[in-house]
Amino acid sequence: MSIRARIIGIDPGLRFTGFGIIEAEGNRLRHVVDGVIGTDGAAPVAERLRALDAALTRLLESYAPEFAAVEETYVNRNATATLKLGYARGVALLAPARAGIAVAEYGAKTVKRAVVGTGAAEKTQVGLMVRRLLPGATITRADAADALAVAICHAHHLATARRVPAA
Amino acid sequence: MSIRARIIGIDPGLRFTGFGIIEAEGNRLRHVVDGVIGTDGAAPVAERLRALDAALTRLLESYAPEFAAVEETYVNRNATATLKLGYARGVALLAPARAGIAVAEYGAKTVKRAVVGTGAAEKTQVGLMVRRLLPGATITRADAADALAVAICHAHHLATARRVPAA
Repeated sequence: MSIRARIIGIDPGLRFTGFGIIEAEGNRLRHVVDGVIGTDGAAPVAERLRALDAALTRLLESYAPEFAAVEETYVNRNATATLKLGYARGVALLAPARAGIAVAEYGAKTVKRAVVGTGAAEKTQVGLMVRRLLPGATITRADAADALAVAICHAHHLATARRVPAA
Repeated sequence: MSIRARIIGIDPGLRFTGFGIIEAEGNRLRHVVDGVIGTDGAAPVAERLRALDAALTRLLESYAPEFAAVEETYVNRNATATLKLGYARGVALLAPARAGIAVAEYGAKTVKRAVVGTGAAEKTQVGLMVRRLLPGATITRADAADALAVAICHAHHLATARRVPAA
């Protein structure tokens, strides 16, 4: 017996936040929707975060995923950029939590390993594998591919967790 | 003529977020409430952000401030600490914006100048002046004093803005 799980993956950023929703049933994956939420770079930060939160909340209401997965962010940038990334990532973690959805976090290497088979994969390889695994994906920007990749990673994690026999 | 404004100041942090609500009427200030929102360090980050957001949202509903002010954060820490600060600060900016409240941001020096008279003031001086300006304040932690300080700063800013004649 396998259970169908609907998963949203989020790749957060203040300027562009990628999202991707998939359905996983055992090892089978199905693409539901993907895209990018952009916020107005000229608007105050609080307003940009409000717009991002509103867009994510609408997605969660419309597609009702049971699981959310967010990519752990690179922090090897300058402090101001890291802080801005923190704002967007905070909203990306908060929006599903507020909707009562469990939120998982995965490091970039874990995502690459799940999608390509090696944690050292190039970004382009990840995008190619995501398109192969999810033929219906639109992926207008790399952020959407990254979001779908973290959703796929969580699907693998759920499938593996279910294969472990109960104690 | 002077208008009474109710202002919430927020000093965000993932472990402790200080808040302080004051009323300003011209140059007169009145303390309404202050305190600290703590989140469980052992809980997942998404759950901590949800708890912080829920507490801030309850405060905004209960006290209905018309203005919010958030202190701009020091970023001279390591990347992981900066990212965590970003999460909390993102939620502190988002919660009032979602409630339709205008959110202002002030740098630490601007806050010190407004409260003590010099941007180079010590943290203890800020606390002393906040207690002097707002006799009713409880201030169980420094975070609450910092939150009241940023609210006072915004009150000064509003009073000054009103003094400028309309074009």
